[in-house]
Amino acid sequence: MSDTFITPEALLEHWQGHRRLTRRVIEAFPDDKLFTFSVGSMRPFGALALEMLSIALPMVRGIVDDEWDTSFSREERSKSEILRLWDDATQQMNATWPKVPRGRFQQTMKAFGQYEGKVHDLVLYAIDNEIHHRGQGYVYLRALGIEPPPFYERI
Amino acid sequence: MSDTFITPEALLEHWQGHRRLTRRVIEAFPDDKLFTFSVGSMRPFGALALEMLSIALPMVRGIVDDEWDTSFSREERSKSEILRLWDDATQQMNATWPKVPRGRFQQTMKAFGQYEGKVHDLVLYAIDNEIHHRGQGYVYLRALGIEPPPFYERI
Repeated sequence: MSDTFITPEALLEHWQGHRRLTRRVIEAFPDDKLFTFSVGSMRPFGALALEMLSIALPMVRGIVDDEWDTSFSREERSKSEILRLWDDATQQMNATWPKVPRGRFQQTMKAFGQYEGKVHDLVLYAIDNEIHHRGQGYVYLRALGIEPPPFYERI
Repeated sequence: MSDTFITPEALLEHWQGHRRLTRRVIEAFPDDKLFTFSVGSMRPFGALALEMLSIALPMVRGIVDDEWDTSFSREERSKSEILRLWDDATQQMNATWPKVPRGRFQQTMKAFGQYEGKVHDLVLYAIDNEIHHRGQGYVYLRALGIEPPPFYERI
């Protein structure tokens, strides 16, 4: 067996650390800016947060049972409702992750019926997409004159 | 032994995929904007690219021999010189990575004499920092009216 870079347990903790930071970025936006403000005609941060929610838990469930749920609605919601959905997803991800079949991360699956790849790459794509869009959110906050939460803090 | 999320070999390939994308983002900036343009008083993308160079190869070398090189100069350079340094780092990272001692990624080290953590977290921090700042670069490009390279393309 090849050497391990990171175990599934540590990877989930790494992801949840990112999700705690992203939660603070959502919180940092004024309610009235979450779906109205952006830079360079890009999507506002509320839309990006909903995209993250449409991917994270459905991704974890999908790699467990190969059922890909695309029903999450991206319609606008209040900040408090988004945070509630965020916390709900956090708990369900933690409950579902241990059910990932052993060896699954090295297998190939087609996520959401269209993105085929090694399962570890599919999961990393979900995390990377969150980091990428959150970096975008940092610029929006700075442009609004708001100090974003520190990038290194994941607790 | 615990199950594997991803092997060291696959993780390096994942990182180099990100570095190929970041290279395209550097290339997409007009020469005269690389160190002059930003949004919200943040650092220009050239400074962020130099930060990435100051971390990536020194991180890989550090986890091999616990010698942490902080000598990389962040002084302004031309775009072609940054791309040359980038390609040089790519080759040296590929050559150095196989020398990481077996089991190292689960050990604890103090990167650059100050950031203590599990080695897998130190490496992921380097990658995540690159994704984060590159996301910032996407906003700068859009604000300049330039279409950034597709996020999903890593070849």
